[in-house]
Parts: sequence; C-alpha cells; structure tokens
Amino acid sequence: MMNYLIIDKLIIDALKEDIPSEDITTNSIVSINSRSSVDLFAKEEGIIAGLKVFERVFTILGEVKIEFFKADGDPVHPNTLIAKLSGSTRHLLMGERTALNFLQRMSGIATLTRSFAIKLESTDALLLDTRKTTPNMRIFEKYSVRIGGGHNHRFNLSDGILLKDNHISAAGGIKNAVKAAKAQASFVRKIEVEVETLAMVKEALEAKADIIMLDNMDLETIRQAVAIINKKAIVEVSGNVGLDTIEALGKTGVDYISVGALTHSAKILDLSMKNLKNI
Amino acid sequence: MMNYLIIDKLIIDALKEDIPSEDITTNSIVSINSRSSVDLFAKEEGIIAGLKVFERVFTILGEVKIEFFKADGDPVHPNTLIAKLSGSTRHLLMGERTALNFLQRMSGIATLTRSFAIKLESTDALLLDTRKTTPNMRIFEKYSVRIGGGHNHRFNLSDGILLKDNHISAAGGIKNAVKAAKAQASFVRKIEVEVETLAMVKEALEAKADIIMLDNMDLETIRQAVAIINKKAIVEVSGNVGLDTIEALGKTGVDYISVGALTHSAKILDLSMKNLKNI
Amino acid sequence: MMNYLIIDKLIIDALKEDIPSEDITTNSIVSINSRSSVDLFAKEEGIIAGLKVFERVFTILGEVKIEFFKADGDPVHPNTLIAKLSGSTRHLLMGERTALNFLQRMSGIATLTRSFAIKLESTDALLLDTRKTTPNMRIFEKYSVRIGGGHNHRFNLSDGILLKDNHISAAGGIKNAVKAAKAQASFVRKIEVEVETLAMVKEALEAKADIIMLDNMDLETIRQAVAIINKKAIVEVSGNVGLDTIEALGKTGVDYISVGALTHSAKILDLSMKNLKNI
Amino acid sequence: MMNYLIIDKLIIDALKEDIPSEDITTNSIVSINSRSSVDLFAKEEGIIAGLKVFERVFTILGEVKIEFFKADGDPVHPNTLIAKLSGSTRHLLMGERTALNFLQRMSGIATLTRSFAIKLESTDALLLDTRKTTPNMRIFEKYSVRIGGGHNHRFNLSDGILLKDNHISAAGGIKNAVKAAKAQASFVRKIEVEVETLAMVKEALEAKADIIMLDNMDLETIRQAVAIINKKAIVEVSGNVGLDTIEALGKTGVDYISVGALTHSAKILDLSMKNLKNI
Amino acid sequence: MMNYLIIDKLIIDALKEDIPSEDITTNSIVSINSRSSVDLFAKEEGIIAGLKVFERVFTILGEVKIEFFKADGDPVHPNTLIAKLSGSTRHLLMGERTALNFLQRMSGIATLTRSFAIKLESTDALLLDTRKTTPNMRIFEKYSVRIGGGHNHRFNLSDGILLKDNHISAAGGIKNAVKAAKAQASFVRKIEVEVETLAMVKEALEAKADIIMLDNMDLETIRQAVAIINKKAIVEVSGNVGLDTIEALGKTGVDYISVGALTHSAKILDLSMKNLKNI
Amino acid sequence: MMNYLIIDKLIIDALKEDIPSEDITTNSIVSINSRSSVDLFAKEEGIIAGLKVFERVFTILGEVKIEFFKADGDPVHPNTLIAKLSGSTRHLLMGERTALNFLQRMSGIATLTRSFAIKLESTDALLLDTRKTTPNMRIFEKYSVRIGGGHNHRFNLSDGILLKDNHISAAGGIKNAVKAAKAQASFVRKIEVEVETLAMVKEALEAKADIIMLDNMDLETIRQAVAIINKKAIVEVSGNVGLDTIEALGKTGVDYISVGALTHSAKILDLSMKNLKNI
Repeated sequence: MMNYLIIDKLIIDALKEDIPSEDITTNSIVSINSRSSVDLFAKEEGIIAGLKVFERVFTILGEVKIEFFKADGDPVHPNTLIAKLSGSTRHLLMGERTALNFLQRMSGIATLTRSFAIKLESTDALLLDTRKTTPNMRIFEKYSVRIGGGHNHRFNLSDGILLKDNHISAAGGIKNAVKAAKAQASFVRKIEVEVETLAMVKEALEAKADIIMLDNMDLETIRQAVAIINKKAIVEVSGNVGLDTIEALGKTGVDYISVGALTHSAKILDLSMKNLKNI
Repeated sequence: MMNYLIIDKLIIDALKEDIPSEDITTNSIVSINSRSSVDLFAKEEGIIAGLKVFERVFTILGEVKIEFFKADGDPVHPNTLIAKLSGSTRHLLMGERTALNFLQRMSGIATLTRSFAIKLESTDALLLDTRKTTPNMRIFEKYSVRIGGGHNHRFNLSDGILLKDNHISAAGGIKNAVKAAKAQASFVRKIEVEVETLAMVKEALEAKADIIMLDNMDLETIRQAVAIINKKAIVEVSGNVGLDTIEALGKTGVDYISVGALTHSAKILDLSMKNLKNI
Repeated sequence: MMNYLIIDKLIIDALKEDIPSEDITTNSIVSINSRSSVDLFAKEEGIIAGLKVFERVFTILGEVKIEFFKADGDPVHPNTLIAKLSGSTRHLLMGERTALNFLQRMSGIATLTRSFAIKLESTDALLLDTRKTTPNMRIFEKYSVRIGGGHNHRFNLSDGILLKDNHISAAGGIKNAVKAAKAQASFVRKIEVEVETLAMVKEALEAKADIIMLDNMDLETIRQAVAIINKKAIVEVSGNVGLDTIEALGKTGVDYISVGALTHSAKILDLSMKNLKNI
Repeated sequence: MMNYLIIDKLIIDALKEDIPSEDITTNSIVSINSRSSVDLFAKEEGIIAGLKVFERVFTILGEVKIEFFKADGDPVHPNTLIAKLSGSTRHLLMGERTALNFLQRMSGIATLTRSFAIKLESTDALLLDTRKTTPNMRIFEKYSVRIGGGHNHRFNLSDGILLKDNHISAAGGIKNAVKAAKAQASFVRKIEVEVETLAMVKEALEAKADIIMLDNMDLETIRQAVAIINKKAIVEVSGNVGLDTIEALGKTGVDYISVGALTHSAKILDLSMKNLKNI
Repeated sequence: MMNYLIIDKLIIDALKEDIPSEDITTNSIVSINSRSSVDLFAKEEGIIAGLKVFERVFTILGEVKIEFFKADGDPVHPNTLIAKLSGSTRHLLMGERTALNFLQRMSGIATLTRSFAIKLESTDALLLDTRKTTPNMRIFEKYSVRIGGGHNHRFNLSDGILLKDNHISAAGGIKNAVKAAKAQASFVRKIEVEVETLAMVKEALEAKADIIMLDNMDLETIRQAVAIINKKAIVEVSGNVGLDTIEALGKTGVDYISVGALTHSAKILDLSMKNLKNI
Repeated sequence: MMNYLIIDKLIIDALKEDIPSEDITTNSIVSINSRSSVDLFAKEEGIIAGLKVFERVFTILGEVKIEFFKADGDPVHPNTLIAKLSGSTRHLLMGERTALNFLQRMSGIATLTRSFAIKLESTDALLLDTRKTTPNMRIFEKYSVRIGGGHNHRFNLSDGILLKDNHISAAGGIKNAVKAAKAQASFVRKIEVEVETLAMVKEALEAKADIIMLDNMDLETIRQAVAIINKKAIVEVSGNVGLDTIEALGKTGVDYISVGALTHSAKILDLSMKNLKNI
C-alpha cells in the first residue's frame, strides 16, 4: 500500500485545486454542524481500486467515517454498494468530487488491466505497465495496475536502466552502451536494452544485457528472438499491444508484455455517491 | 493561455516524479556537453494541444530550443512533423517522457472534444466540460477542452454555485436553496440548479435560478423543459451523453451540453520523438 | 467558515515567520512541562472576528485548550473576557503574538465593516469589499468583512469578470469587450462593466452586462444611472466611499456599494492576553 | 534591501492568491501579443516605499520593464508620476492589483512612520517598530518602517530576548529570569526586560539587563526611571504612544520609543496605475 | 527543545529522500497488519542526543510507540539499551535508517562536544559552536552541541552581527564598520568584531564593540589581548582549536572558545536497532 | 552531474536556513552596488568535489561569476587556488558560508573515499557507499563518493531490494523472502540478501539471489563464501570496514565492499575564501 507520507501531498494539492478558497455552494446551504450519511455505489462492471485514497481525501478534510463493503481488487457491478460514509455534511460534499476523481480513475485502470491480464492467464507471460502515466498520478496509477493483476516496470528514470535507440546511437552501439551503463550506474540495477532486429538481439545478448525488450516485432520474429535468447536474458515485448493481440504475444514464450494503454488510455469506472441523509 | 506562474509548479512536480535523483540511463551514456536535435511526430489523426506545456518541460530542465510547425488546435495526421527540438542531449532525453505525457493527454482531450463539438455545429447548443478531471491536471485539461472547441463550466467549488440534489434536500427544497445561495454567496455568481423533473424545473424558475441543469432526462422531457423555461434561464443538459446522442440533444433547444467523458475518459493521442541526432 | 485545508498553510507560514528556529526567551525561562492558563480580553469597543484562526494557531503549536465566551460577530468592550486558554506555557507564549496579530487585524476589519454596514441599514443597498486586501491575507480579510455585515465581491481574478477602463479600451469599446468576455469566459460568470458616464451606462445596458459599476460618479448622476438601468442590471457604486457619504449613496437606489478601505485601511482592534498563571 | 531569495516566495503566493488559475477577464479581452505602457501615480501626500517589490511582481509574471522617477523614501504628492511601466498588456493587468496591494501598504507604513519620526527629531530618542505586524508581511513592513525613518526592534522570537511579565513571573522574579536567559541563550544576545514600576527598574538594573523597557509609565515616572538607570542600560518606552504624546516622551531622555501602530494600524497610501496605452 | 513546527518539514523531507515512492523490500515481505518490537542499542561509548527526533520520524510514519531508557545527554556504552520500539513492522523498517541517520549524527556531535567541554571544566572559558554546520541540519546540530555541554554562537546571518576582515576593509576600518553596524542594525544586537592583531584589539575596544573575536592568535598574544580588553568587552577565541590545545586556550582568561569541528567533522556515534520480533 | 531541478530546492532551503530575513552584518556595511572579487583556496590536502554546487549557491543569490582552476576530482593542496569569484559584494558575503558548507563536506567525503579506493586498486573489488548519509544531503554525498572513486549502492528504499535479517525472519527464511520479493517487486530489480553464515550463503544461492551481502564475516569465512558462490551471484562485503582492513578484504575475491564511514564519518576538507577586493 501507498504510505500517507507520499500521497498526502498529492491529495492535498488536488483538494486545493478544487477548493482554492471555500466550497461556496455547500457553505451557503449546509450548516457547519450538520451530519449526514451517504452511500458509494458502482454504476458499471469493473474492478475497484483506490479505496484508501478515497478515504484519505475525507480524513484530510475532517470528520468522516467510512465503512467499506468491498476491498481493492474486488469486482463490482451496477448497484454494488461499495461503502457507507458518515460525518460532517460539509466535508462529505466538499470531498465528493475529488475523492471520486481519484477512485474512478484508479478503478478504471484496474479494470482495463484486469481485462488484459486475463488474456495472459493461459500463457507464461506477465503484464507490465510503462512510464506513460498521467503527470503527478504515477504512484496511484502504478498501484492500480498491480490491483488489476499487472506488474510494474521501473517507477522512474532514477531507479531503472533502459537503453533505447537514442541511447544506443549516442553510445555507438549496444556493446558500448551496456558497458557504459555497467560502469556508471549502481551495480544493483539490471540493464535493459531495447532492440528492433534479431541482429540487435544477438548484440544485446553478447553485451550481457539482463533484460531485452523486443520493440514492435512481429510474432514470428519474436519467436526467433526468444529462441536465440534462450533464457540467457529476461524477454520483454512492447509496442501497441491490444486486447486482441496480447494472448498470441503471450504464447511466444516471452516473459513480460508491457502495455502503455493501461495507464494512458483507460476510461474511468463509473461510480457515484448517493442517498445523502441527515443523521 | 496558461501562465507559467500556475503551471510551473505542476510541471516541476511531474519532472521530479520521473527523476527523483537523476536519469541514470542517460547520465551513464551521454556526455554533459552533447548536443542533439530530435523531431516530434504525430502517429495518428487528431488535434494537437499543449505545445507550450511541452516546451516548458524542456525550458525548466535547461538548454533546449524548439521550432514549432503546428499550433494548438491544429489537426495532425500520422507522420505530421509537429516540432523540431535541439539542445542538450541529456535534457532532451530526460524531458521526453514527461513532456509527451502532458502533450499526448492534452491532445487526446482536444481530439475527443473536437469529435463531440462537431456534432453540435448544426445546433445552437454548446459543449461543456465538468469537474470530472484528473487530480492536479485540471488547468491542463480544461484548456484542452477549449482548444478542442468546447467551453468550460466552473473551474472549482470556489468559483461557481451549483445546487445539486443533496444541497436541495439539505436546504428543504429548491426555493430555500436558491434563497440561501443568493443570501450567502457573492452577488457576482450565477446560481445553477440541477433538476430531475418538470416540477423541479418550474420550482427552479420561480426561485429565479440563473441556470437550470436538466439531469438525465429523456429527449421529450427536455423539449418540454425548454418550452417551460422559455429563455428565462440558461438551460444545461447533463448525464451520460455520448457521440451518438449528443446531436439530438443539441436540437432540443438547450443552451449547453456537458460531457464528463471529455476529461475523464479520453484516450491519449499517440505522438513520438524520433530521429535524435548529434549536432 | 474557512476550512483548515486552506488556512493551515498560511498560519504555519506566519508561525515560522515569528519562530524560524525557536522562541529563545521562553525556552530559557519556562520548563517544557509547565502548564498555565491565560485570559484573552478586549481593550476597546468593537466586533470580534477570527476566533477559530486564533484557536488554530495554538492547535498547530501543540497542547492548548480554549474556552470561548464570545463568538465571531459579537460586540466586545474594554475588559470583555473573550476566552480562557490553558495548556503548555511554552505554546501559550510562543503563539501569543501570531494569534493576536491575526485576531486583532480580523476584528479590526469586522469592526470597521460594521460601522459602514450600519449606515446602510435604512437603505436597500448592501456593502461590498474589494480585492484591495493585504497580500496572503485575503481569505481572512474577506471572512472578516462578512462577519462585520458586509458582502464579498469576487475573490480573485479567476472567479469573476470585471471589465475596467483598460479592458474596454483594449477591446475597442464596451460592446466588443462584453461580447469577447461572453464568448471566452465560462457561461457561469456574470459580466460586470465599470462605467464613468451615462453614455457608458447605456452602452453597457445594450451590451447586456449583468452588473454595472458606477465609478466615482456624483449623487445626481448615480440617480440618473439607476433610472436608466431600471433593474435591467445590478448596480454597484465604487470610489472613495466614506462613513460620511455612504448613507446618501445607499439612498440613490443602487444595489451595492464597494469600499476598499474595509480591508486596506482598517486599524486593528486592541486585544490582549493577560493573567498568565501556572496550573 | 530585501533579497529575492526571501521575498519571491511571498510574492508568488500573493500572485497565486489573486490568480489561482487564470485572469479570466484579461484573457478574454487582450491578445497574448499585446504590448502596452501604463503610468504609476500617487493620489495623495506621503512617502513611497516598496518600489522593488512592486517591480518584482511584474518580473515574476513575465515581460514588463519599469522606469522609476522616484525612489523608496521619496515624498510624493497627488499626481506625482512615480514610474512608467511597459510590456505585455496581459502581465500589466494581471499584476496591477497585487503590485499595488504591496506598494500601497508599504508606503502607508512608511508615511505613518515618517509622521512619528519627525516628532522625535528635536529629541535624542529614536522610533522603533514592534512584532505587531501582519502575518506573512513582516519583512515588507519592517523594511517600510526603516524607509520612513524608524528603527527595527527584534525581527522574531528566535533572534532577540525580551522578558515580559509572564516570563518574569514564570521564572520567579527579574533576577532569576535574567540569570536563566544569560545561562541558556546565546551570548550574542542582549537581554531586554519589561518593567512596570521603579522597583522593577532597579531590579532589572541589578540583574544587569542590557535593555530596560518601561511599559505604560507616565512621563514623570519615566523621567525618574531614566535618572535611576543613568546610562547603565538602554531605555525603551512602550505602550499606546500617539502622535500627540511621542514628542514629550522623547524629551524624557529615553533612548527608544516603540510604536505598534506603525505596522498594525497604518492606512494605505493611495496610488493608481493609469493611462494604459497600446505600444 | 526543538518545536515540531520547525523540524517536521526537515524530517518529512528526509523520509521522502529515502522513500520517494515506497519501501519495495518491506512491502514485498511484511504484511500491512504485522506488528513488531525492536530494540535500540548503543554500539560504542558516547553521549546520546536526538531521541525526540528519532521518535518523531516514526510518529510521522504512523503507528509506533517508544519506551526510552535514556534521555538526551546521558552517556551510553556498548550494549546500552536506549529504547524499545513497538508498532507496525512496516513503519519500523521504513523509518529505521532515517531515524538512525539523525540520531547517530546528533549523538556524534554531542559526544565530540562533550570531549571538548570537559577540557574547559577547569577554566572559566565556555565552548562555542559556529555556522560551519551541514546544510539543512543546523537546528539539529546546534541542539546537539548544547546537549554535549557547548553553547551556541549566532544561529544565522539574520540574528547576529559579526564584522570579519572583509566587512572591515569594505567599511574602511573597524571604527567605521562598528559605527555603520550600530547605525543600521537593530539596537537589540551585540556587535562582534574579528581581530588579528593587538592594534586591532585596541581599535575594536575604542569603537565599543560588545564582543571581540581573537582570530588565530598564539597563546601569548591572546593573554595580552585579554589584559588590554580588561573585561570591557566579551572575548572569544577562534581558529583551528583542537582537543590538545583547548585547555591552554581556556586558561588565558578568554570568555569563549569556538570550535568549528564540533559540527563539521564529528564522526557518528554507532547505534543499531536489533532483535525485531513479531508481537 | 546533478540536475538543478533536484538540487536547487535543497540549496535554497540551506540559504534560507542561514538567511531567514537578511544578512544584517553585510547589509549594514556594504552598499548594494559594491562589486568585489575573492579567491577560493584549499587549506589542506585532498580531493575537491562539489564545485557546481558551490557555484549554484551564488547563482541563486544573484550576480556572481566564477572562474574555476580545478574540476571535481582534482587533488588540491594547501594554498591551491581553486577558483576566483567576482560580482556583488553582498552576494559574495551572503553566500560564502553556505557555499563552503556544501563544498567542504562534499570534498571531505571525496577525500576519504579516495583514501579507501586507493587501497583497492591492487584488488578486483570495488568500493561502495551506503544509505548512512546525512538527512537531506544524500544526492550530494553519493555524488561525492563517485568523485572520490567509489561506486553507489542503491539510492533509497524505493529503488533497490535488500533483504536484511529482519525481513528474512519476518518472511520465514531466505527462500520465502526471495520468493516474495521476486513476486511483488518489479522485475527490473536485482534481489540482494544479507547473510551471516555459510549456511545462509547456500540458502541465498539456492533462492537465486542476484547479490549476496556477507555481513561482518572474518576473512577466512569470506573466502569460503566466495568459493561457494563461485560467480553465481555478485558478492558484497559489509561491516565496520577500516582503512587498515579493506585491502585484505579486497583480496578475498569479493566484488564489492561497502563502507558507511564514507558518508557518515568523513571530516570536512578545509577551504577558505580570501582576498576580497573591491573591483
């Protein structure tokens, strides 16, 4: 789980984005002492993710308690009662949109991830995310991928080495690039190399890359690459992977398949807070 | 345009999310004095939005210059050359992902917005966004909606009044709610009321609401509501509006149609930085 | 009321302004376990405002409890006992000046506002504040105006439209300016236009401005403007309004009178913390 | 002068208070490439202070140049031309209110300070400020006092020792309090003691206080205190000092007279930006 | 003691430096509900300092309670049990390194300070620190000096005046420099002057410096300087003072001896957290 | 090199720690327009590191230019002229202490690292740092280790996996711990296991740990461990390594030796800024 140390700042920033001074509608209508309960429902089929973030929005605002009937990773359906909130009416209304904006987006990512992950169940390949995340949302989005059954690639540029075409040409070839990376970067890092041809696969193998990423290859070439690599490196496949193509990719024998769409193009999961009642 | 005063903090936060200490790949491979050029291409059809944000990422990092061949709002196609960047190779590589994450998402929103806006061209209705935006991305997303041909609803809870069902029941009816809002909130605000039935439409009219939002009504009920309101208030329609239904809604005579999907469920526009060359 | 989400940062900044490292006097003299009570008194006639902010200063510092005998908006007199504080002697002494600096200033504004608001009681006009507030104190100052019986104009440049002379000349006249504002800004905004002559009043009316601000007009001209406008727009009066002139202005039939002095030139209300006793 | 290191954060916070997202009026009306000039005038008699802060507001926003005809400390009169600004019309309009809010308040303090300082010119006493400043404005307000001819007392609780009645009773008398302060606080600090009676004056002298503050004494008692102290400590007078009483106080032979009103109750100096013209 | 108001930001920054996203080791292995106890031991001889900071690291992370068997200033030995912690296993593991990094460094400074302070016990001189502290650690390091038996010199450039050779030459001699400092700086400040020769000592005395710092003088010259000054100013000695030379310096009659090494070159005190057990 | 994106915040925080309001000494004595040059000298033998950080302190303050005669990694000696600075006298004096505090500490670490690294030159082992760094100084300290000839271990808890005794017991043995780590953590991470006995070495090998850290073993046991591991994992040695013991350790055949003292107990390198002259 995400520690509050990290996520609180992002949640507070989001709340201030929505309430730079005050909630003028709520403050005009609702007395400061009013207490209410309200229900959180699903409005469509999917996987819920982000309930602790949803809760933290209200904890930061003030006096709200939440009873959860579902946990992160659970499937939900139209009209599934996910949680019951109770507390300050003002805080319930002030936090509603921000809390839902987090939860709907995170659940949307978990839901899309699950649909990809299921396709790989019959294979030995695992599903990966990328760094194609929404700015300032990465910690929430990478967590949602895990909840949906995916695995995380590196978190950021500081904690993993991935030599792409530009790095390789800058270094004068794969061999030099891997050598430079091994010399300069911490020995705790694995070295990953992105390749586009079988010749590059061989070069990466000889350079002792730990991970070889096959970029935009066709199925047949991928199979040949897997054979050439022959377990001497971890194999990742990348490039415009869709729900219709991932299973076939998974059966080529690769270890990982990364899908940018998990975080960059998931639609939200529709949820709503309803039945607000004074208590 | 967005002022740097506001967006710089968000861009810097995003850069630090991707580079908490250093870009270990780039720093291993590329010398600090290396200079390169690189091209920004579109990989699919859409509307470009966010070029100033894209540029600002590199300006904040350091020494990069950009020549733009397209401007925000321009249509792009596969292989459209959008810009040519030149400067520090390290800064080009360090900023690439963050800059693209902003630009692809903003362009995705502009592209989806354009597809909705076109449907309304034959009507008198205008397209609106909502507050269903990604946390800490609202200023970028609302801007992208405008670039795509949409209009902005209120920006946050502090700058617009919208009395929803919960507020109305808390206040004891529309009349009381509007009265309280007019008494407490600044006179520079318009008062908007969300209604679900024609009876509520009439009540809102009598209470002198400035804007009436018809929530989840069918076409016929909307037409009757428009007739009842009869230009005495601005009419907004809301609720699960799709590309297939928006034109009919627009022809009912309403003034505005709000679509949450513009910001909460747009997929990105695929772009890429290619052809990095030492200069 | 102001939410802690927004005001805590400003209070913490103020405390750090006064205590960048430690309170060297108190820490030299008072043991860390010492507990005391102390009384908050008024030293002059006025309206108290800001008690929650006063309390929050001590809550942020640590262990202090406060019993209040007065509430925001109550009149106080010399020697009125407003509150009794008890808790850590160190925190009482460390927070005293910052807490009083907030409370005295807020109460000073409420007191001055009340003296203006009383003058309008026999009229139909309401009292307004402006954006002429102390930097980084606006949320406290606008709240104090409300406590004193005034109303708030727009909070900032992002949440209200006011077309002043400079905007009008830039746009080429009132008609163009209002048209541009209606086209570009969110439809939830009212459009306010500042005018200096009756000719401009007419132009603003024709352009369908929602609010017309009469700037620095004499009483007779104001009366004529009110007659011309004839309830087709809200009327605001502005410009060097004093305690001696406001009542006559209020009787001209205008809706609102804005007074910059409420926030930019109020003197503080004198208060003090006395009778510190070990407990 | 204040270093930008310190004041920039406060200026940026103030700008964001006034422009949390964008200036919707200006952006609707004025094109991004528009350039203008505008004049800064005084509207009343006073002392100008804060011109570098005024300028910095526009520098932070972007492209504005300023030619100054007056410097901090100069007297101004109705219609004195203080400066001519030129640059981005948008930035001129966006920064106007925030820049003036700083400059008017700082000049108001300098003006009030000058009126007090003049009264002391025929005496040997010097004018002091206090910590009764506006939260988060202290650096600007203490600077303005110096510009007006006053001197600064300690800046905050961390950089000066002042033993007040509460500290003295907590420590069990002046002697113990001074002893504790000398033992605990850095030897670079002077020890100041607040006294209310001649007996306390003697006690403070015996305790070797560096500075003795006579709190709310009448003129005759002050004269006696000065005689008793006889240059063995610096003498400060404090407590409800007015323009009508300060000169007599100054003639008693005290070294310093502190006046809280300089910062807590100065009205602003009226200034305005006029004659905006496209260039 | 340090107030949380000031130190929390530095502790949070340190925690985020060590955990920018999450503790991937701990989160892989330890369940979120696991609870443990763990012991804090000393591994070498020294003085403990910083226990409240150590505790605060865990308080900020979450659910950890600590029973202390030693207090700041107590001597510890190999295997001294200093504290027993219990609570969330994850928080214990996440906070361990950061908490120890603070505590070991602070205790190292206290230990080195104690060894210098003991040498002065037979003299009338007191031990001082300097501003040669680790960036962003000053509040912790100056506190540790006090715990070790040293005294604090000024905290920063804003709260004390020290005229060094560069200032003196810029001002045209000691006399002018002291005069300028007395005229410009707050009267609550003492004026300290750094001198290198007996001639400069005399000049400083005539200028009425409050403190004279003898920089890098030999013992005999220091004795002469002390005789010349003859209690008319406070005397500080500075410059490469070592454990072998400080006692002789202390016996020359100077009041204070400042030692930069206390904060810039102390080695840490070796401590460890051991015996983690599930509870 | 460190990017300004990351280090500027830390440098600004350090400057504000030393100058919360203003440099009262300098501002009293030196005119705002004064320009000077000053020299940076070494006062002892060592390796210089941190010159860009030193320079950045002055760049952030304002107008200072620096000509460097040495680069990071160069040896310096007493009286080596490292750089010549010129610019605003105020900025030179304001930045001196903060700039030196960074540079002296970084150079001290580089110097100590070099002395350890030299001992390993005749061996195949490489020198490593640890996470035992000063809070909020890690980026500077890890950089300095590299300059001194050492290599970096993981940067923080988020970017490397190290299973220590506590994790292993929590997981129920090495096998389970490694299995859990491989299942949960990103596949781009290497798994490191800390072991204390040869039995544990074998267990770690069987669990396919990527790196095995031999903790506090004697030389003979280390040699046996190296033989057992036989290149099937990377071998790191850790635990109270000194200048007198590291060479023997290096000759046992291990790959890496980590030394906490590099960052936690280096003394500074003595440097000074001298010969300030008006220009």
